This record gives sequence, C-alpha cells and structure tokens, in this order.
Amino acid sequence: MDTGWVDSLKFDPNGLVPAIIQDHRDGEVLMVAWMNRDSLLDTLRTGKTHFWSRSRGKYWMKGEESGNVQNVRSVYFDCDRDVLLFKVEQVGGAACHTGHRSCFFTEATGEGPRETAAPVFDPAKVYKR
Amino acid sequence: MDTGWVDSLKFDPNGLVPAIIQDHRDGEVLMVAWMNRDSLLDTLRTGKTHFWSRSRGKYWMKGEESGNVQNVRSVYFDCDRDVLLFKVEQVGGAACHTGHRSCFFTEATGEGPRETAAPVFDPAKVYKR
Repeated sequence: MDTGWVDSLKFDPNGLVPAIIQDHRDGEVLMVAWMNRDSLLDTLRTGKTHFWSRSRGKYWMKGEESGNVQNVRSVYFDCDRDVLLFKVEQVGGAACHTGHRSCFFTEATGEGPRETAAPVFDPAKVYKR
Repeated sequence: MDTGWVDSLKFDPNGLVPAIIQDHRDGEVLMVAWMNRDSLLDTLRTGKTHFWSRSRGKYWMKGEESGNVQNVRSVYFDCDRDVLLFKVEQVGGAACHTGHRSCFFTEATGEGPRETAAPVFDPAKVYKR
C-alpha cells in the first residue's frame, strides 16, 4: 500500500488532523475524531479506524470496547490536506457512545435543540466502565 | 431564534470549532472550515455560512467573492458539543476554491492519491485575486 501521501498532510501543532467518518451507504456523517500520523497509519494498515483521544491522551480503535468497529471502504483528504474523510461500514449500526447511530443526533432548530433520532443500543449494556 | 445552545458548545483554546458542510440533497461532504462564536451567530442570523480563517486571521462568508454562497437548511452539533454539521444548498454547484464541487476530491487509494472528480468551474475566472 502506498502511504507516502501521509507525509504530505498538514497536521496541526499537536500533530493531529480531524477525521470525518461517513457511512459508505447513505452518506450520513457518523462522527468526527482526531488522528495523528500513527493512528492514521494503523487505520490504513488494519482497515479499521484508529484515533488519538485528546481528552484521554491515548490511542483507541473505534469499537475496541463496544465491538462497533468501522471497516474502512475509502479514504479522502481535502484540498488543504488538513482534513481526512473516511467512508466506512459501521458494524453494529451505531457509532456514538450514547447509543445513537450518529453523534450528530441533535438538531439546533429555531426553537432550540431537539433530538432527531433515538438510540439504537443501551450504552450501559455495551460499555462496562 | 433560540441561540442559547451556542453557549453550551465547547470551543477549543483558540475559540474555534470545526464545521462540516454537507450537501442537503445527497449528503456529500463539501468542505470543512472553522467557526468561532461570532461567525456561528452570523451564520444563524443570516442563513449563510460564515467562518473564521485561521490562515488569514479574518472572518469570511463562503461565496463572498465567488458568489457560491451556502444557504443553511439545518444545523446539528455532536454529542461532545465540539463539532458542528450544516446541511446546505450550495449555490453555483461547487464549494471548493479549486473549482471542484467538494474539497474532498482526492481519494487515497492503495496505489496512491487519485482525483475522483473534475472541476466544475475555472478558479481563474471566478477569483480575481
């Protein structure tokens, strides 16, 4: 696999780029997380999304605890080479730790925020911590 | 319009959040740019996307020069309240300053990067600078 393009990316001062995760079937944006060079290379090597957690200061593979891994179908970078986009197959049908399919389940309407979707799993039964 | 939710967002240390811009019709991710509190409020007030340019250190309205403004159809924030998602009508059919419909016109394939779409306008005829 040619990964030379990774060195052409513009990582931020913390060595990170945002990664948009999109359902490969219908284009729904499932989540956004951050990758550094190593988590991106792990993602390309394994075909499953890996990230760097800014809040926890550690690597994580999406689904490592819940089983809801993301199988990468295609990878894109933007014209400025500072944002990544992954089209994935979302195992388990839900990407969000709240149990929702997408992390973007709250719409900010003119009358205020409202949830646009119900959870598809119970986080208390999936996450043991 | 209720904009109280804006104060619940988690802006980064520079006062910014990433904003994903998605075509409201087919879900294609058109671009990602950054908003601070003021550019977000301008976006909500006018119904057209406004951003903060990190590289130029200034506010800009998408399409202010090209005419390719983005009419906001709906607004979402994620479970962590640190990423915004806008579904828009892209006037002029193209969001990218290169003339492509989407900024994500380069796929990183196993054999290396390849362009997946041709430009829909000639930037030299649209941008005078």
